[in-house]
This record gives sequence, C-alpha cells and structure tokens, in this order.
Amino acid sequence: MEIVFLFYDGMTALDAIGPHEILSRLPGAVVKLAAISAGDILTSSDLIMKADYALSDVQRADILVIPGAKTATSLRKFPAILEWIDKVHQTTTWTTSVCTGSLILGAAGLLSGVKATSHWATLERLSAYGAIPVSERIVESGKIITAAGVSAGIDMALMLAAKVSGEQVAKTLQLAIEYDPAPPFDAGSPAKAGPELVNALRAKMLNVFEKK
Amino acid sequence: MEIVFLFYDGMTALDAIGPHEILSRLPGAVVKLAAISAGDILTSSDLIMKADYALSDVQRADILVIPGAKTATSLRKFPAILEWIDKVHQTTTWTTSVCTGSLILGAAGLLSGVKATSHWATLERLSAYGAIPVSERIVESGKIITAAGVSAGIDMALMLAAKVSGEQVAKTLQLAIEYDPAPPFDAGSPAKAGPELVNALRAKMLNVFEKK
Repeated sequence: MEIVFLFYDGMTALDAIGPHEILSRLPGAVVKLAAISAGDILTSSDLIMKADYALSDVQRADILVIPGAKTATSLRKFPAILEWIDKVHQTTTWTTSVCTGSLILGAAGLLSGVKATSHWATLERLSAYGAIPVSERIVESGKIITAAGVSAGIDMALMLAAKVSGEQVAKTLQLAIEYDPAPPFDAGSPAKAGPELVNALRAKMLNVFEKK
Repeated sequence: MEIVFLFYDGMTALDAIGPHEILSRLPGAVVKLAAISAGDILTSSDLIMKADYALSDVQRADILVIPGAKTATSLRKFPAILEWIDKVHQTTTWTTSVCTGSLILGAAGLLSGVKATSHWATLERLSAYGAIPVSERIVESGKIITAAGVSAGIDMALMLAAKVSGEQVAKTLQLAIEYDPAPPFDAGSPAKAGPELVNALRAKMLNVFEKK
C-alpha cells in the first residue's frame, strides 16, 4: 500500500506529520515523500524535512496526502505539481488533503462540484475552484477526503486508518499515540473562539494569503 | 526567547512537531533543533528532519523540549546527551518532555523525587529514576512539565504557550491550528480502549523497549 505525501517549500509541518505518524504505521504501508525535487523542504516553521522522491519518480498512490500552507495557492505557479496531483489522483483509492491543501486539490481541478473543507479562514476560497465549501472537520466526497485546519489531519488519518485497515487497527494507533485530547482551552473553532479572536486571526492569515 | 528541541535518531516525529508547530509561533521565539551533530535525523517513521545545531553549540534555553522514542532509554548509552540536558536544564525557565522523553529526563538525573508522566505503556518505568509516576496527560512539577504519549505534546505546548505569552496568544494559536479535536473513536487512553487493546499494544511496545 503506497502512501504518498506531497512535500513543498512553505508547507505546514504538522499538516503532514499528523497524518504521517498514523498512516506510516498501517500494516503494509510504504510511504513516499514526494517533491518537485528530492531533498530538503523548508516548512513554514523553518524546520527542514526531507523529500525522498522527485514527483517524476512517483506515478501512483493508494493514498495521496496533500498538506496545506499559508502559501498554498502559490502552487498555481507550478503547473507541474498540479498536473502530477491530477495524474496520481487517477490511480488512488483515497485522495486526501489537510488544511489549505484542499485549495491545492482545487487548483489541480479535482474539486469541481465536490463538497470539501479547508482551514476555517480560507473555507470560502474553495468556491473559486467550483467546490462546495462545507464547514466540517472532515468531509468525505467519494474518494476525496478533505480535513479542516492543521490538527484536523490527525482525526482524518484515524478515520482513514479504519477504512483501510479496520477499526481495530485504527483504535490501536489512537492508543499508541495516546490521542485522548485535552486542550487547555476551548478555542479551537471559530464558533468557540468568538468573534474577536477570529476576526484578528482571519485578517492576519488572509493578509499572508493574498500576497502569495 | 530560545526554544530548544533535542533531536536524535529514532525519535517520534509527532512528539517534536506537535509542540514545534505551536511554540515556534510564539512572539519572539527563536527555535533551535539540537542533536549530537547538526544534520539529518532519522525519526522512528523513517522521515528525515534536520537538526540545525550541534549540542556543543547550544549552551542554554528558555524552554527545552525532549521528544520521546520507542528507543528512548537507549540514550543512556550517550552520556554526552544526558550531561547536555542537565547543563541546559540549569538555564531554563521550563524543561519539558513528550511521551518517553520523560525517561530521558530521568536518565539525565532530573526527576529524582519529581512527579512526572510518560507514555501510558512506560509510565511505571519512571520509578527507576526516582520519579513519582502520575497517570495524567500533563504533569507540572516546578519548572519541569512532562506530557503523556505523542499527541499530548500538543496540549502541553498550548498550556506552555499560555504561561509564556498569555492566554490570548495560546487561544489564538489553538484557533490557528484549528485544534478542536474530534477523534473518530474513543480509544485514546488505556481506560477508554479497554484491556484487550491495551494488553496487546503494551506487550508489543515493551518488547521493542527492552531490546534497546
């Protein structure tokens, strides 16, 4: 079972590592980290992770995972990446995204008429790609599964683990990473955080977003 | 504010990246990823991340983060790492660990008579270092904060963010990573997962643990 992650400069490390920590432990998993060129990838938090494959060396995937980035829409300047996503998507059982990764799926032309989610601050941007924005943590539309912002990739990966390897395996992985979340605050969604935090953060995030 | 992560071969990627995604976004944060030698670190899931400092080039930290590993106790074979942890700990405001990282703090001699937690499967091992094992997700003992298995590092980092930069900043970071967890199953702790899953996984994990 080939599980392929798209890696690219600027991506959010946790968008990739959340699902990676779970999916890489699935029985029979062969994980490939694919970028324009194999080698160092600079994440948004300045941490460097290594892509072990060039996109040109990966033709297919059973599971494709597209992490997000504050700069996600800048990938429209790299048609080779979008074409690769479209090509690999034709071969997948599951095509998935985390956070603004769904905007990359959109730019690749995969979300026309498809229900999808994204980071809450960029959810409405999905419409530009013909997608139907749905404000849920995980949205499953046929073989495309999109997850909301950053940490939602962990929930998505556990759900996917159950689909691929059964509920028993998924629960064992949840127990292995002791995923019994207990956030010290209840501010993880716009509804819970309230308008003041939401408006300040949205303005800041979209400011970065527009520039790319 | 210098935030230093210990990186080492075999460490669990999510133990480090969960807190890193949060703490690296704190106002004024300068993050250093320190390993025996600067360069590639092979995590337990075969993903390579880059340490940007050698231990010898990092003398102090405001926050020290020690991630865990299935092979955590093998670090006792590297007294230079344990001595470095002890030395840097003398300079910190907060010394923290995720998962079996607490066993490394223990091996470094920092937990004598100190209440601490760890991954549930290795919690009792803390006693070997004179620590007092506490089965909680996050345990704060003076300036030492230990978190339970893998994903608990995210909760720990948000708690720490509030201590260091205030509750408003911590809540904004929670909202930024949309940390409104919704695991598809309720199997994230031994009590919730039940004895069958727990016993199978404990046997498997301790088997790896004993060999190192």
